[in-house]
Parts: sequence; structure tokens; C-alpha cells
Amino acid sequence: MIFVTRKAHFNAAHRLHNPDRSEQWNQEKFGKCNNPYWHGHNYQLEVTVAGEPDPETGYVIDLGVLKSIIQRRILDPCDHKNLNLEVDFLQGVIPSSENLVRVFFQQLEAEINQEAFGSSRLYSVKLYETDRNIAEYRSALK
Amino acid sequence: MIFVTRKAHFNAAHRLHNPDRSEQWNQEKFGKCNNPYWHGHNYQLEVTVAGEPDPETGYVIDLGVLKSIIQRRILDPCDHKNLNLEVDFLQGVIPSSENLVRVFFQQLEAEINQEAFGSSRLYSVKLYETDRNIAEYRSALK
Amino acid sequence: MIFVTRKAHFNAAHRLHNPDRSEQWNQEKFGKCNNPYWHGHNYQLEVTVAGEPDPETGYVIDLGVLKSIIQRRILDPCDHKNLNLEVDFLQGVIPSSENLVRVFFQQLEAEINQEAFGSSRLYSVKLYETDRNIAEYRSALK
Amino acid sequence: MIFVTRKAHFNAAHRLHNPDRSEQWNQEKFGKCNNPYWHGHNYQLEVTVAGEPDPETGYVIDLGVLKSIIQRRILDPCDHKNLNLEVDFLQGVIPSSENLVRVFFQQLEAEINQEAFGSSRLYSVKLYETDRNIAEYRSALK
Amino acid sequence: MIFVTRKAHFNAAHRLHNPDRSEQWNQEKFGKCNNPYWHGHNYQLEVTVAGEPDPETGYVIDLGVLKSIIQRRILDPCDHKNLNLEVDFLQGVIPSSENLVRVFFQQLEAEINQEAFGSSRLYSVKLYETDRNIAEYRSALK
Amino acid sequence: MIFVTRKAHFNAAHRLHNPDRSEQWNQEKFGKCNNPYWHGHNYQLEVTVAGEPDPETGYVIDLGVLKSIIQRRILDPCDHKNLNLEVDFLQGVIPSSENLVRVFFQQLEAEINQEAFGSSRLYSVKLYETDRNIAEYRSALK
Repeated sequence: MIFVTRKAHFNAAHRLHNPDRSEQWNQEKFGKCNNPYWHGHNYQLEVTVAGEPDPETGYVIDLGVLKSIIQRRILDPCDHKNLNLEVDFLQGVIPSSENLVRVFFQQLEAEINQEAFGSSRLYSVKLYETDRNIAEYRSALK
Repeated sequence: MIFVTRKAHFNAAHRLHNPDRSEQWNQEKFGKCNNPYWHGHNYQLEVTVAGEPDPETGYVIDLGVLKSIIQRRILDPCDHKNLNLEVDFLQGVIPSSENLVRVFFQQLEAEINQEAFGSSRLYSVKLYETDRNIAEYRSALK
Repeated sequence: MIFVTRKAHFNAAHRLHNPDRSEQWNQEKFGKCNNPYWHGHNYQLEVTVAGEPDPETGYVIDLGVLKSIIQRRILDPCDHKNLNLEVDFLQGVIPSSENLVRVFFQQLEAEINQEAFGSSRLYSVKLYETDRNIAEYRSALK
Repeated sequence: MIFVTRKAHFNAAHRLHNPDRSEQWNQEKFGKCNNPYWHGHNYQLEVTVAGEPDPETGYVIDLGVLKSIIQRRILDPCDHKNLNLEVDFLQGVIPSSENLVRVFFQQLEAEINQEAFGSSRLYSVKLYETDRNIAEYRSALK
Repeated sequence: MIFVTRKAHFNAAHRLHNPDRSEQWNQEKFGKCNNPYWHGHNYQLEVTVAGEPDPETGYVIDLGVLKSIIQRRILDPCDHKNLNLEVDFLQGVIPSSENLVRVFFQQLEAEINQEAFGSSRLYSVKLYETDRNIAEYRSALK
Repeated sequence: MIFVTRKAHFNAAHRLHNPDRSEQWNQEKFGKCNNPYWHGHNYQLEVTVAGEPDPETGYVIDLGVLKSIIQRRILDPCDHKNLNLEVDFLQGVIPSSENLVRVFFQQLEAEINQEAFGSSRLYSVKLYETDRNIAEYRSALK
């Protein structure tokens, strides 16, 4: 099986905060990530599609098409934005990296699966919040 | 299970072109990657072997041996070459990253499996065409 | 002459905004960097000291001491903070990378010059706002 | 399934040597890695936990907790140390990268599994001995 | 003095060849870089402007403007192209990295100096042909 | 003026220790870097030559020649070695990064200046002891 990956970047502000819990609970759980004045990251995103290449093009998916899907579905709504306040599909989501990759996967899945060759499918969304903190959502391989 | 990976690099020219289709089709499918005057890349290759280490050496495979197999089987034929014109085992192959990792896997498999300890086997060949475009061929784990 | 450099990282929110000018002017000049809901970065900082090493230690400056000065003077006030709202020494400063390196240099200079060997001096503060956008403040070499 | 990864670094001296075999055998098998006067590396470690995030925090595991477990279990005993002579849990182990990831996994597993949310589990320990030589111990996914 | 740098990338084919000298001379001087079937690189370009920031914006030069100048003057003519055959301003130039940075500097200088604040000026063009081979053209600082 | 840089890597063991001072002094000054059982690093070396390119080749210096000088003068004596015990030209030198770049410069200077074109000269030797700790010896530009 072949996996193709496209990387992308965006910069955003966020804070980790659960509005259903007390300030004290939030401070204890999230520490400086709970700062009410926000902080931010240069997020690096890796989107991986798994399948077989089209024999006519050698492509599992056209990486230019994949780039434009990522641009439209993730970068346009998230780049230079506040992830807690300004992104429709993140309303009600605590923007931990774990939650972001899960939601990003949902945002990307249908359109990528439609554009990928044959039975190729979106396989993984990986997000580097920093060089040292990384989260990945991976679907089961069929 | 333990995975050991060796990285290598080579520089090559290529173009994406399907000779069975029209110029117009090729231009539409491959865009600037179809440039008849070629373009090129610094390819980064990662070769991963999976298995159990030899208790006498602690090695799944001697990485010096793995390095020399990659050198002989991939780098010597491909480095500073034109992938469309000069590589015997790529004749008739559209040199997309997806196709390259599949063919590189075939080139490496027999010799690596012979040199690796016990039942260890070549598991994956991953190719960075650029920092942002990546393909990987992964075999099934037994 | 010998230069020693220590790298450090911090994550922060900011926005580019000149409060003395109109909203329209700010939007035209700063575009998406002017977002009133903030955005943020993983800043990478490189601090370079120039001089001659102490013959007894081989150090221009003890990099552990340099690390702790950077921690106290820059990372403690800036990490996981809002650079526009929460950093005393940035009050009234538009937090462009150019302005940040100039102010960081001022914050670091006296203490580093005191700790460095002999006539060694703080030479440069370099800041990677992203992998692609970089600013550096460099003093004249004597 | 979601995977979260934390990176860490340490610097250490080591040599590859099997005391049960002759000097000649060791020299043939390990070459310059057998140097009796040692050599060393900047090791980069990646520890990955797999599971589901806690709905209250969005965390599979608190990465600050994961960082402190790695610090206590791996970095404190190994950083700026001689892996052959000074690390209790490596006594009798040839410090190849393959063996190191297996032993590091054992060192980390119990405490990480206790701290991770729900049924989340330590999944992988990956070690970069150099930029080009990498080993990973990966458990089976349930 | 403050330096701001913008990075960019392009992929191109080239060969090192001096048409005024014999094939044998070219083969001896350039070795595999002389391959008549071309090879190629992922070039990474760093363009640095030196000066003082505009007090109204905090910018030595608007990095969005700098990005678009690099795009128009360098990337549009060079990306996915053959540097020997297809780039007007490289006609008659042996495309070594040393020569490329000199010519790129000339291509960029006038427009950057016009867009930069006050007396700020283009200072340096640096080109990574590979991770290990780098050339830089640096003007004298006034 | 044009600068060309070649990168190289080596792995070595070392310890920071001044034999003319007491154990206590060494422990206070060097801390864990003073460990008598050694530690080690993946050193990354950058060697920069400054000058004008040869109009016949476009080279300030043939980077293949520069690579082989670095190999012979630095990597062969230092790679997989103990810098305190096994390197002739480091006898009596405390192997701090500051001292290493000064001595490496002396080792490289004469041969590089002989091989570089015209009046081109070795300009800088830069050493990354880790990703975060860097030293550079830079000569005056004429």
C-alpha cells in the first residue's frame, strides 16, 4: 500500500479551557496553556492519503488538488485566526492537538476521498503544535 | 517489533509524462511537472527494516550494510541522473513519488531480506520529493 | 573572533496594530496579521555572544548561564503570553519581529555583558517568527 | 485512534561491544562503533501514546506529565552519561539503538499507562542516534 | 542594524558546463554535475534586507511585498525550469550556486531597495543547493 | 563578496576538564559536562570560504575538494573518537566548542587557501555541538 503526504502550515492563537469547569480546575489542568489572554503556535499539518496510484498518472491523489483542499478546508478558516473564537467547525471544541486532528480529519475526509484515485482514502492527519508536541488521528487501514 | 531506518539523499532530474497520452492531456494532468526541459529535486530516502535484533550484536540489520545496499541499488543508478532517461529499472515508469517508492522497494527487497537478522524484513521505503511532498510504500507486517 | 549562540523557544499570541492610526490603515498595512482576535507563533530565538574564550574554561560565556539569562529576561515574561497585552517591556511597541529583536537585545545586553568573559559582548539577537520569516538585531563589532 | 508524541533530547557516550566475544569479532562486527575510548551522540527520543482523549481536557495524556516521566525515567539516568557504564537499567545490554528503544519502552510503559486517559497506552519509542540512523520499538495496537 | 530574511523554495534542473571548453575539461572539472541529461535540486533561497524599521509599521520591509518580489523575479522564471535553457537572465551563466546568488542579487536589488523603508537595502542572497552545499552573495554594509 | 559553505558531521565523545585545576573547580565550572565517564555529541560542522568565483568554473572552491579536505583534516581524526584522548591536534585543549572551532580553523586554513580560487580564503568554521549550542570562529574579511 502507498501513502502520500502533503505538509502545510498555519499560525493561530488559542487557549485550552473547558467552560463547563471552574477557573481553578482549568488552571490546574491546563496551566499556562489556559492563559485568558491567549498564546499561539506555528502549526505544521501533515495529511496522508493511502491507496494505489492511478496507472495513467502515477498519482494516489494529485498533490496540487490535495494542497487546495487543505487550503480551503483548514488553512483559510484557521490561519492567522483565534481557534477558540473564529472557526465555525471548532465551536464547542477544546482546541487541544488531539481534538484538532480529529476535527480536521472530519473536515477533510469526504472531499479527499472523492478526489483520490479508486479506493484510496484519507488515512491520517498529523499536527505539530510545536517541534516537541505532536498529535495524529489515524483511521484503520482496510 | 523493532524498526530500523536509514536515510539517504540523491539529486536527480525528472519530468512527469505519460507517453501514451496527448501533450494536452499531459499538460492538464501534470502542469509544470510536465516541463519538457525537465526539473529536479533533492530526494530524501528513508528505508525501514522491521524485525527482531540479533542478540549477539543488537542489530536488526547492520546499518553500514544497509547503507551500502541503498548506495549500490538506488544512489549509484539515480544520483545526479535523469530518472526518465538514465535509470534501467525505471524504464516505462512515470517517475511520480508513488511509483518511485514502489520500484525502489522491489530493487531493495531481496538483498535486504538476505542481510537482515532472522526473519527481519524490508518494511517501508519513504521518499521526500520536497519537504512538503512525501510518498511511502509499506508492506504488510506479518 | 569567536561567536557562541544559544537557541531558545517560546509560544505567544500577538497582533500587528498601530493604535495611532485608523482601523483602515492598520488593515491595509498589516492584513491578516492585524486580526483583532490575535494569532500566534512558535518563536525561535538565537542569542549570540562575541569575544574570546576564557583560557581556563574554554568558554566565551557559560551556555548554562546564558540559557538562564534568556529564560529569566525573555522566556518567563513572553512564553505562553500575549505580546501586546502582557509584557511590560513591550508596552507601546508594535510586536513586529524587527521591533522584538531590538527590544530583546536591550533586555539581554547588560546582564550578558557582565557574565561573558573579558571584553566579550552580546552581538546578535535573531528571531524566527516562522520558518520563513526571520529578523535579527546585530550590533557593530568593535 | 489518536497518537500523541513528545520529543526529548539527551547527549551520551557509548560503544558497541559484546563482552562475550573476542576483540577481533567485536572489531569486525562494530568497526569504529567499537572504539574502546568511546564516541557519543545527541540522541533524539520520540515517545508516542495511543488512545482516546479525555473529553474533559482533550488530552490523551497531559504532555507536561509525559515530559516529566521521560525526564525522570530516561533523561536523568542517561543525559551526559556513559550508556555502557553508568545506567543501571542498561547493565548487560549492548547499547545499539535497537536495544535502547526496547529497554526505554520497558522503563516508560507502566507509569505512562497509569497516567494516560482511560485505556490509552504507550505505543512507540523512537530514537534518532543520528539524523540518518533511527530505531523504533512499536507495540501491537489493540 | 536590523536584518529581515524571507525564505523561498524552487525546484529546477541544471548542469554545470562551460561551453567554451572541451568535453574532457568539463568532465574533469564538474564530474557528475556535468551530466548532459541534467540533474536537479530543491533550491532553498534566503533573501535578507538590512536597515531600520519604519516606526509606523515596525517593518524594515513588508515581508508580503518581499515574498511577491521573490516570486515574480526568481520563482516564476526558475521554478520547475531548466536553469541552463529556460531562464533569460541566466543565459551565458554557468549555474553554479556562486553564480546564481550573484545574478539573483542583481535581479532583486532595484525593486527591493525601492520597497524597503528609508535607507534599508538588499543585503544578502543565500542559496541552499542541498542541505550541505550553500552559497551566499553579501553586499558591503554601509 | 561570495561565501560558499560545506556542511559535515561527526560523532565523538568528550568531557570538559581543566587538568590544572581541582576536581571541585572542574565540577563547579563544567557540571555534568565534566563527567569522568564521558558523554558525546553528533557534531555538525559548517566550513565557509569567502572570495570570488573562478569565471571558468563558477566555483569559489570545488565543493568536492572542500569536502575531501574536511574529511581528511577533521573527520578522519575526530569521527567516532574521544576528543580528549585520541586527537593529536587537540592535545592540551579543553574541547569546548569555542576551542574546537579555533583549532579546526587552524587545521583547515592552509590547504583550503591553496585550493580556493584566486584570493579566496577560509572565512569561518561553525560547529553545532547540539541543536541549541553553537560556536563559530570567523576571520576578519579583507
